[in-house]
Amino acid sequence: MHTMQSAQASTEEVSTESVSSAQAMLEHYRRVRQFSETLCAPLSPEDCAIQSMPDVSPSKWHLAHTTWFFEQFILAEYQKAYQPFHPQYAYLFNSYYISQGERHARPQRGLLSRPSLHQVLAYRHEIDRRIAEFLCSENLPTEIHSLVTLGLNHEQQHQELLLMDIKHVLSCNPLLPAYSEKERTPSRASSPPRWITHSGGLQEIGRTVAREASDAHFCYDNETPRHKQWLEPFAINSHLVSNGEWLEFIRDGAYQNPLLWLSEGWDWCQQNDISHPLYWQASDTEWQEFTLQGQVPLDHNQPVCHISYYEAAAFANWAGARLPTEAEWEYAAGEDHSVFDLHPNSCENGDFGQVWQWTASAYQPYPGFKALAGGLGEYNGKFMSSQIVLRGSASITPSGHSRRSYRNFFYPHMRWQFAGLRLARDA
Amino acid sequence: MHTMQSAQASTEEVSTESVSSAQAMLEHYRRVRQFSETLCAPLSPEDCAIQSMPDVSPSKWHLAHTTWFFEQFILAEYQKAYQPFHPQYAYLFNSYYISQGERHARPQRGLLSRPSLHQVLAYRHEIDRRIAEFLCSENLPTEIHSLVTLGLNHEQQHQELLLMDIKHVLSCNPLLPAYSEKERTPSRASSPPRWITHSGGLQEIGRTVAREASDAHFCYDNETPRHKQWLEPFAINSHLVSNGEWLEFIRDGAYQNPLLWLSEGWDWCQQNDISHPLYWQASDTEWQEFTLQGQVPLDHNQPVCHISYYEAAAFANWAGARLPTEAEWEYAAGEDHSVFDLHPNSCENGDFGQVWQWTASAYQPYPGFKALAGGLGEYNGKFMSSQIVLRGSASITPSGHSRRSYRNFFYPHMRWQFAGLRLARDA
Amino acid sequence: MHTMQSAQASTEEVSTESVSSAQAMLEHYRRVRQFSETLCAPLSPEDCAIQSMPDVSPSKWHLAHTTWFFEQFILAEYQKAYQPFHPQYAYLFNSYYISQGERHARPQRGLLSRPSLHQVLAYRHEIDRRIAEFLCSENLPTEIHSLVTLGLNHEQQHQELLLMDIKHVLSCNPLLPAYSEKERTPSRASSPPRWITHSGGLQEIGRTVAREASDAHFCYDNETPRHKQWLEPFAINSHLVSNGEWLEFIRDGAYQNPLLWLSEGWDWCQQNDISHPLYWQASDTEWQEFTLQGQVPLDHNQPVCHISYYEAAAFANWAGARLPTEAEWEYAAGEDHSVFDLHPNSCENGDFGQVWQWTASAYQPYPGFKALAGGLGEYNGKFMSSQIVLRGSASITPSGHSRRSYRNFFYPHMRWQFAGLRLARDA
Amino acid sequence: MHTMQSAQASTEEVSTESVSSAQAMLEHYRRVRQFSETLCAPLSPEDCAIQSMPDVSPSKWHLAHTTWFFEQFILAEYQKAYQPFHPQYAYLFNSYYISQGERHARPQRGLLSRPSLHQVLAYRHEIDRRIAEFLCSENLPTEIHSLVTLGLNHEQQHQELLLMDIKHVLSCNPLLPAYSEKERTPSRASSPPRWITHSGGLQEIGRTVAREASDAHFCYDNETPRHKQWLEPFAINSHLVSNGEWLEFIRDGAYQNPLLWLSEGWDWCQQNDISHPLYWQASDTEWQEFTLQGQVPLDHNQPVCHISYYEAAAFANWAGARLPTEAEWEYAAGEDHSVFDLHPNSCENGDFGQVWQWTASAYQPYPGFKALAGGLGEYNGKFMSSQIVLRGSASITPSGHSRRSYRNFFYPHMRWQFAGLRLARDA
Repeated sequence: MHTMQSAQASTEEVSTESVSSAQAMLEHYRRVRQFSETLCAPLSPEDCAIQSMPDVSPSKWHLAHTTWFFEQFILAEYQKAYQPFHPQYAYLFNSYYISQGERHARPQRGLLSRPSLHQVLAYRHEIDRRIAEFLCSENLPTEIHSLVTLGLNHEQQHQELLLMDIKHVLSCNPLLPAYSEKERTPSRASSPPRWITHSGGLQEIGRTVAREASDAHFCYDNETPRHKQWLEPFAINSHLVSNGEWLEFIRDGAYQNPLLWLSEGWDWCQQNDISHPLYWQASDTEWQEFTLQGQVPLDHNQPVCHISYYEAAAFANWAGARLPTEAEWEYAAGEDHSVFDLHPNSCENGDFGQVWQWTASAYQPYPGFKALAGGLGEYNGKFMSSQIVLRGSASITPSGHSRRSYRNFFYPHMRWQFAGLRLARDA
Repeated sequence: MHTMQSAQASTEEVSTESVSSAQAMLEHYRRVRQFSETLCAPLSPEDCAIQSMPDVSPSKWHLAHTTWFFEQFILAEYQKAYQPFHPQYAYLFNSYYISQGERHARPQRGLLSRPSLHQVLAYRHEIDRRIAEFLCSENLPTEIHSLVTLGLNHEQQHQELLLMDIKHVLSCNPLLPAYSEKERTPSRASSPPRWITHSGGLQEIGRTVAREASDAHFCYDNETPRHKQWLEPFAINSHLVSNGEWLEFIRDGAYQNPLLWLSEGWDWCQQNDISHPLYWQASDTEWQEFTLQGQVPLDHNQPVCHISYYEAAAFANWAGARLPTEAEWEYAAGEDHSVFDLHPNSCENGDFGQVWQWTASAYQPYPGFKALAGGLGEYNGKFMSSQIVLRGSASITPSGHSRRSYRNFFYPHMRWQFAGLRLARDA
Repeated sequence: MHTMQSAQASTEEVSTESVSSAQAMLEHYRRVRQFSETLCAPLSPEDCAIQSMPDVSPSKWHLAHTTWFFEQFILAEYQKAYQPFHPQYAYLFNSYYISQGERHARPQRGLLSRPSLHQVLAYRHEIDRRIAEFLCSENLPTEIHSLVTLGLNHEQQHQELLLMDIKHVLSCNPLLPAYSEKERTPSRASSPPRWITHSGGLQEIGRTVAREASDAHFCYDNETPRHKQWLEPFAINSHLVSNGEWLEFIRDGAYQNPLLWLSEGWDWCQQNDISHPLYWQASDTEWQEFTLQGQVPLDHNQPVCHISYYEAAAFANWAGARLPTEAEWEYAAGEDHSVFDLHPNSCENGDFGQVWQWTASAYQPYPGFKALAGGLGEYNGKFMSSQIVLRGSASITPSGHSRRSYRNFFYPHMRWQFAGLRLARDA
Repeated sequence: MHTMQSAQASTEEVSTESVSSAQAMLEHYRRVRQFSETLCAPLSPEDCAIQSMPDVSPSKWHLAHTTWFFEQFILAEYQKAYQPFHPQYAYLFNSYYISQGERHARPQRGLLSRPSLHQVLAYRHEIDRRIAEFLCSENLPTEIHSLVTLGLNHEQQHQELLLMDIKHVLSCNPLLPAYSEKERTPSRASSPPRWITHSGGLQEIGRTVAREASDAHFCYDNETPRHKQWLEPFAINSHLVSNGEWLEFIRDGAYQNPLLWLSEGWDWCQQNDISHPLYWQASDTEWQEFTLQGQVPLDHNQPVCHISYYEAAAFANWAGARLPTEAEWEYAAGEDHSVFDLHPNSCENGDFGQVWQWTASAYQPYPGFKALAGGLGEYNGKFMSSQIVLRGSASITPSGHSRRSYRNFFYPHMRWQFAGLRLARDA
């Protein structure tokens, strides 16, 4: 799942206008950090403590872990004789950084009634205070800017995870409580989908390793290095597959037809009794869907969401098409090519679509990929097996945290992330 | 595990002094009900929501379930056109009463962040108000007194469960928080243990089915009927086995010696890597024990607690003794016989010892046992397989909720209840 | 499951007519040992190697294990400088005797293609030769006769296990091969069932510890000591419950009615999708049953077989009756009381009925039970937890291997043994 | 795992010299079919019936399944009113062809004592007779030659599987029996390993879809189509990693160092207690290895074998190198490039090395891959998820069944196949 990929931090020079830069950085820091707490505002202390499955973390844990990240990789690293806020928080809130010491087992994050939400917020505020103080200190090491940028991107990733996770938590409650009371406006049918043809050839994808990873040019190391790929001519669809189209797939008996599925996918369907996307529920008269706004009638015009890779691949097969490779996706999303319709429907946040899009590509290192040295770089590649790349972004992706080269990745059976699909085919 | 055994309710007459009786009943009702909330006073909303294993229920769930019990079996049963407090609470807070409709799966009680603790307390107070009103109504059916008595005994059982459960919840937190800050006073060595011999013969155990189950004479139906058992001469020890004695068992390598164990018990040890009682922890210099007062040094004079039946049986074997049968235990605890020392150490609440005592008896119906008719009687015997009877009571058993004939029961591998042992042998 | 309970061997004197006694013993030895091989005659080498579930052992393993028993407990024990037949057979063919050294894991007995069936038979014949030689030696220790008797009773137990196991093995093959081609003659309806009333009172059950365990008086130690039990008046049915009666139970929806079941039993049904006895199969027009003679139409007059304790208890509940305790069963089967109809139908081998009969009694030690010293006595009680006593015998029980006091035992969910039930009720 | 990829069969013309061609084909058919039986010659009926884990099939099953393949896809398809040899063999011996009907569950192949080995051989001989008769018939459809070729390649795949599987079966027996008594000659140290540099660029890999798939040009469809890949400059090692080098990896504590491993791989090590390759065993004085010739001292010069992808990746990481991609491997193995030393040691059969070589590439369809129509083509891509490509061949690969473009694939944790590794690095 979500790895915390480390930034391609420049360790060389720092901008000369350090004062104003520090101010801007601090401003940005406060804005991003505040947003995590804003996201928790509708939640009770109990909501924030629940772990509904091993993949899910409690909201409270997200709030604390992202704070530990700043404490561990900046304060503890750069401040002499730094005294941790609490002697056991490193144990409780380290996610998977083996080099940073022992840690609490992931499936047991939901057993931690203490520290309370209130105590976690106090932890946040004290670390924020210390960070602010530190950022205002003189002779700040040049790499601090990059580390803060990385920490804030990390926080943004967790903001999306927090929403994915709380949706799952609330969905497990028979009361089906809404996270947000905001009304959903039914979407309008958009322009009809069309196939966009690309000629392919020798193309470059990925990102150059940055000399300086300012906010605007930040990327994770798994997006590097920029490298060549040969692409055969292909077509990609302008639209995401919609709920309405998925209903046709269901009605055609596709969930009962093994010939459409990968062998693993078919076994997964049988073992887990899968016959529709996660969060869908059939009533007597209509399909309903559990959302962050509670249980609502299924909106046929919206992109289908919460499907596994297996389902996406079966749908593409059924539709006589295939999933795009990540290289095709990135190339097709490029500026100097005719872009596909990234916003088929109403979409507030999603810069690259309302749902992440499964690709045909296994998550593997780009040719020439190099892991960074040190604690943060420790795990750059350690998740590069058995997972699948998703491209785009989702409606819950924080503003500013999406880009053409972003490589999201999940195991093929996972569905609680906001994942849909876009079709492709050979041209 | 703990079944909610229904009362032997008389359905015939009601005492003529109904007014004062109703007042006394209400007074008793309020006292018992209030105590459940008092037990939760040291707990945060998050503490009350956690389920640390399938056998454990969140404190909040105990508070709500005991309330549902009164609502379901009294208000809904006896009030015309009764409107439930909440349409889904019967689903959420029914434990295992199949006749009372569908219910939330037990292992998922910890997924319910809603209703909040605050809402559950509001539920309690409203049902308390309705019950009080109902009890003051005229022409109260004669069986109400018995039902209230049963409901309060049920509540007391859950008070003990709540403490067992919250101890387990807190023990799973690496911070090892204390439930109560009250200091533990080290116990003094008591008088030396001695063997008390009984001549046996044809004895009666169990309780006669009550004509009228007033508070003072209440018992669960699994304690009935009173019946004869032939006992060979035997001796029973005056004392519970102590932590100090258990340390000798450990030091003698008993956890590594398969010849001392039941075959099932040995397999259980190997599969779960068992080498000491639950909640014990060896540090470099001494043994420590997690308690409701937090982590403390092991008190050698205290009775050993949190052991499985398998461990109890192996200890008895190692000691050249055996466990008493439940008939022997009850007979030995009788008034007209020399009773064993029920309070070897300081013991506040426990009327029959500080820890429940594993017996040699499988939990099975007494000869002539009859299940009551109706919803409450529905499950009188349904837990009578594969479990073992424990006798006595524990330090956390509510005052007034223990008696000589009480049959507690757990599966042989279970350890989170407050269970120890007393030795017996053939005379 | 089946423990190998050790004999109550006298260690004192031996009969003076030692020569003819040794001859008779050897004769008996050969007859019993030969019968094991006769049972395997219809089987191929592959049939004899398969383990269809962890509880089942391959036929070949039974043949070897019973041989190892004689080698280990007689030859290796009593012959100076005894050279084992094969250095690793003790490892491969020790079942569960921890004191006799390490052993091959039970669930992996089916992985042993070597030694071949041919080699196992060679092993048997060589040990038979050595035993014969040994029994003809002078100054035979007095306890040898008891050990041989025990070994032969052990072999007979395994003869029944071998048939139970091979039936399970063959049932897993879609070809549904028959073990034996012998035709089954349909049974006639017997005399109508009737209730036989017993007055109870203080009764003795179990067996006195034998001074000398000659063949005719052999018993396992779990049948001892003889002891008193108080019995209330009760009635027991003359007949075993039949397939026809079980069909009524099915047609009445009993497998779908949780109120009839023990809580554990209901969960077991749900988790394993149980809706009929093991080996039954519904076709379009009729019920069929897999037997040692292959797939045959269900015979309504035959006793129901291959049911779990949970099913037996639910049936008794449905029928407004209960299971007898083992004390009631043994008392009712006694000489000086009106015995129940042990052979309701055609029954070739079964001395006490065609199927073992689940009782209401947990398998626990009799009061005063003492484990023997030494390797064979090592495990006398180690299986006395969580299992249920069955009484009687089955059509596949070897002739001469059944008696009134015999205590068979299995876990309550087990069904591959030949188990049915007889009803009882309070008088 | 091993998919049965279907041939790229031409359906157009057939060679005019049909008679001699049919003769040659039949000759080839007999030779390949006979070799399967030759491989089973050292095995007993019991050896041939055992399934030691779900991934393993009994030898007998391999013999029958490859026969069913010819019966199903040739005789049943092309002969009018074809009567199957046995009505249930299609059920028993269909592996995973959903379009060909229901089939016996894979993990239960070891439960089939019947049909016996003898009956399976009779099945083979009768189908061989019918095939021979059919191949001599006039007007043979043009695609038969391709289907026979495919069936024989399928048989060869299963010959390798049979050896992998029987090695696993025998390894589970504490007697550690040898499959073959042939002595192993210790290998000599070969020439020192060296890095071979390739300039990369736009290269073609894979195979053109054949117009006519004669034996000499046969390939599976997953090897097609031939397509371009851009390769950066890289170096590949001339030698396979040896047992001696693996010992250095072990001695350096690599199995205890999480920083060397993929996250999944580390979890796999911990959960399965992995500290050396499968079949290795440490004695007091030396390492031993279980082989088809029984237990032997570890040969340091031999290529390491029976490692998982996780171990291969960790080794490469430890060695400061990486695994080659499958494109790099195929390109480096090409005729017009300096090939690496495919035979570092004595190697009888392996055309491309003694062990399969894990690559860095996930098993996915080549660009433009098209599944064939019909039953055989049904599953061409259904295994293309979560598996890893291995290239080369192994010492147990049948002669003539290896080629540069061959794509073998297994799950990353699998080790019972003959898999090792060759290192690569960026140039």
